[in-house]
Amino acid sequence: MIGLQQIGCYLPERRLSNYDRREEFGFEESFIEEKLGVRQIALKAEDEETSDLCVRAFEALVGKVPVDRSCVETAVVVTQNPDVNIPHTSAIVHGKLGLPESCACFDISLGCSGFVHALSVVTAFMKDNGFSTGLLFTADPYSKIIDPDDRTTSALFGDGATCTLLSDRPLYVAQCFTFGTIGKDHQQLTCVDGKLRMNGRAIFNFAARYVPKDVDTLLERAGLALEDIDLFVFHQGSKFIVDTLTKRLGLDPIKVVFDMRDYGNTVSSAVPMALAREMKQANRRRIVICGFGVGLAWSSALLERASLV
Amino acid sequence: MIGLQQIGCYLPERRLSNYDRREEFGFEESFIEEKLGVRQIALKAEDEETSDLCVRAFEALVGKVPVDRSCVETAVVVTQNPDVNIPHTSAIVHGKLGLPESCACFDISLGCSGFVHALSVVTAFMKDNGFSTGLLFTADPYSKIIDPDDRTTSALFGDGATCTLLSDRPLYVAQCFTFGTIGKDHQQLTCVDGKLRMNGRAIFNFAARYVPKDVDTLLERAGLALEDIDLFVFHQGSKFIVDTLTKRLGLDPIKVVFDMRDYGNTVSSAVPMALAREMKQANRRRIVICGFGVGLAWSSALLERASLV
Repeated sequence: MIGLQQIGCYLPERRLSNYDRREEFGFEESFIEEKLGVRQIALKAEDEETSDLCVRAFEALVGKVPVDRSCVETAVVVTQNPDVNIPHTSAIVHGKLGLPESCACFDISLGCSGFVHALSVVTAFMKDNGFSTGLLFTADPYSKIIDPDDRTTSALFGDGATCTLLSDRPLYVAQCFTFGTIGKDHQQLTCVDGKLRMNGRAIFNFAARYVPKDVDTLLERAGLALEDIDLFVFHQGSKFIVDTLTKRLGLDPIKVVFDMRDYGNTVSSAVPMALAREMKQANRRRIVICGFGVGLAWSSALLERASLV
Repeated sequence: MIGLQQIGCYLPERRLSNYDRREEFGFEESFIEEKLGVRQIALKAEDEETSDLCVRAFEALVGKVPVDRSCVETAVVVTQNPDVNIPHTSAIVHGKLGLPESCACFDISLGCSGFVHALSVVTAFMKDNGFSTGLLFTADPYSKIIDPDDRTTSALFGDGATCTLLSDRPLYVAQCFTFGTIGKDHQQLTCVDGKLRMNGRAIFNFAARYVPKDVDTLLERAGLALEDIDLFVFHQGSKFIVDTLTKRLGLDPIKVVFDMRDYGNTVSSAVPMALAREMKQANRRRIVICGFGVGLAWSSALLERASLV
């Protein structure tokens, strides 16, 4: 049984306040608080590379749980903003952490659905190869590609990274996954000539339309009802999308995580970062996690507390 | 049982001859024939994108075997030269091929070891999610990043793509994998400021040192001897490296594939392209495939003819 044992998170210290940019962007306070849900974004240092963010997240992980580097059998980085395109960032992280020669490294290119997709991919890869210890990193620093004058993106996305220890001593185990892609609409969220371009309304409409029915599909497959789920961790795209999904699914807001006010939308790190805080609570028996965005793509998973499986 | 059912291959028609560049590069004929082993390289059209190469490889696949697009449950692209960094190329291919909304798409960033790694990743992902039909693409057009004046790379690398149908009606099944990474040496093969930089000697030494012992490890795990293997498909890095591996492992050259003379080293497409030709021969009971390069990384797999498993 391979599952999530622990998650280490890293947020750079530097912050950029949306209140300081209210006039420039023409933001009302209610827009910052209730629509974006982001007071400030986290920003990496200029010379901080994607692989450095991964190393910091690993350090945060080992602050929570001992990890014997010599036992790491795979290390995977989810990113669309790698250090360079060749080699994969996981190879650079492998070198920086001094991981063993027998460690299988690769990057997965996915955006905001990346953690959920990769949780399935890496868990399956580990099981099929008989591995017991793996590291799943997310690090997608959008500050590399954001035009600071673009109000739809520069007030929303923050830099951050996570490192999830996947092992045969899990706290949570993923029991079921769903996936989806609408490739023909990929132009709504893309990076052209090094600049991020997002049609915010199109992405919102996509998520509001597809995510609720995907959660229904997931629960149907698992033979569960919404009431059986203790917590929902949706991708932290904005407060407005999290609130909309909560309403459309008819969820009690107390069961829905919102966790981005002080650092922003950290892309593939948003779900594991929110999950990391919630994993401490032993009474969360079943958690649904759900990512959506770039692709356009989405994925959902049912996590069950391993002690209760 | 999920395995390789068929492989479609695409090579652009355009060629650049190394004989036409003999004077410019100072190549002896013996160097072209015996060291490089590449008479001409395949070059994509300027406006042909990585996703287009994938579509062409899919068309070649459906020329060999019928594929019902509505049944494709996952589509994965191995590349380090995507159309753009956001979104993943697999989403663009998904749109171009009109694949179903329920299809899980992601890219894997790996170089010359990419097909072998990805064969394990995608097979495991399919098995764990109960999928029966998947497409594994390789397309890494190095012409995007090669300096035409760099004799160590521009005479060697060619453009191409493959599309492997992974299904529950396989011709070959992968029984065992090995993986490795030496991330601290990643600078020997990298892309900086859009230009490929390769220390050919370092990569050669790496492969000559690590690949033979990796093949030994693979066979030991599988409980087989070199004599039990009918065919070896090494990454087609150059004639010199294929010959060196053949000698160091003490293999009969007739059991070792060499297939790059008329198009070059196609990176992650090299192994599946060579394998595609050999899969036709029903008497190949056991095949060892082995990729190595960018990372620095390597991986090997034992394939067994499904009818004999």
